Amino acid sequence: MKRIPDDVIRRLPRYLRMLDDMHERGETRVSSGQLSRQLGLPPSQLRQDLSWFNGPEQQAFTYDIDELRSALGKILGTYDEFSAILIGPGKIGSALLEHFNFIVDGYKVLGAFDASPDRIGTEIAGVKVYDIGELGDFVRDNKVDIAILTVPRGPAQALTDTLVESGIQAIWNFTNQELDVGDSGILVENVHFSDSLLALNYYLSQKKAKE
Amino acid sequence: MKRIPDDVIRRLPRYLRMLDDMHERGETRVSSGQLSRQLGLPPSQLRQDLSWFNGPEQQAFTYDIDELRSALGKILGTYDEFSAILIGPGKIGSALLEHFNFIVDGYKVLGAFDASPDRIGTEIAGVKVYDIGELGDFVRDNKVDIAILTVPRGPAQALTDTLVESGIQAIWNFTNQELDVGDSGILVENVHFSDSLLALNYYLSQKKAKE
Repeated sequence: MKRIPDDVIRRLPRYLRMLDDMHERGETRVSSGQLSRQLGLPPSQLRQDLSWFNGPEQQAFTYDIDELRSALGKILGTYDEFSAILIGPGKIGSALLEHFNFIVDGYKVLGAFDASPDRIGTEIAGVKVYDIGELGDFVRDNKVDIAILTVPRGPAQALTDTLVESGIQAIWNFTNQELDVGDSGILVENVHFSDSLLALNYYLSQKKAKE
Repeated sequence: MKRIPDDVIRRLPRYLRMLDDMHERGETRVSSGQLSRQLGLPPSQLRQDLSWFNGPEQQAFTYDIDELRSALGKILGTYDEFSAILIGPGKIGSALLEHFNFIVDGYKVLGAFDASPDRIGTEIAGVKVYDIGELGDFVRDNKVDIAILTVPRGPAQALTDTLVESGIQAIWNFTNQELDVGDSGILVENVHFSDSLLALNYYLSQKKAKE
């Protein structure tokens, strides 16, 4: 299969979210026009994006919602099973453990890691909290796929070094710090709240300047 | 000034973050080569991005870090002062209030809003929690610029309707739901954790398929 461009990949989760909402409302078919209006995208772009994995024979003007959800899920790997750990179950970390539906998304969260004696040995949303000193061995022994990093900026790089040495595959990074994984090929996906707020800030100051 | 393309605007906060790190390390000048390597972008793209606001006369091969930070801050509106409120100070919401440095970013957080009697009247990180029933009047009376929405999906659209009617300018949306603001022109900036994880999921399943 041809390599799907990054900007297409970045749009697909949103398509899937929309289709999940339609499915929940009991809808079964959607036209490309409806879908593109709801997404705020030109119909031509929508059809082109979907043609990357849906095959030219399905470039019809209406889609079966469940078929499209299933095709999107397959390409995004939601039917795969990945193992995950969470490092730093503070407020953001424990909110993710409690509210984020990892099971639906095919993740098995094997444990959380913390340095605080108050947290070690407890459970958060059914996930056991281990001593951060055990991190490297745990990742190696359990062949953990993804580490969710919700620690402050300070210890982020040292923990990343440990993860890299222990053979982690991917890091979902909430630390607002750029992580250096060298030439390990480890995937890093950043969630930078401040970048998002700064972009909003730009549009807001432009809007106010026009008033 | 010409309208800067969205994808450029989306990259600028990252540039600013990098430059802030360099400034903290006591560095004063950076070459476009260094900067582009650190950002993982082609040098030509970096120079083109910066030429949108830095003027062609500054397309040199080295930049003064503080001048560039200041120019970036100006274009992103970080010297403007905006007022903000936070709706739903649960775990994610209170983590934002406690750890996110709103003051540095020029935000004045005027209050938080909650439906729970246990929280109303308390303070979180120095921010007073008001009754959600007062939301509309508060936004109108204080001409609030930005609402940070950290409630569950359920009440998200009803609260958005109240915000739209009360004259909010922008919504920073953590609810994982697409918000309908009609033709109000209100800015909505979405933070969709699950989209980010799904993108990572895609790259991870591609990587595993190759092994």
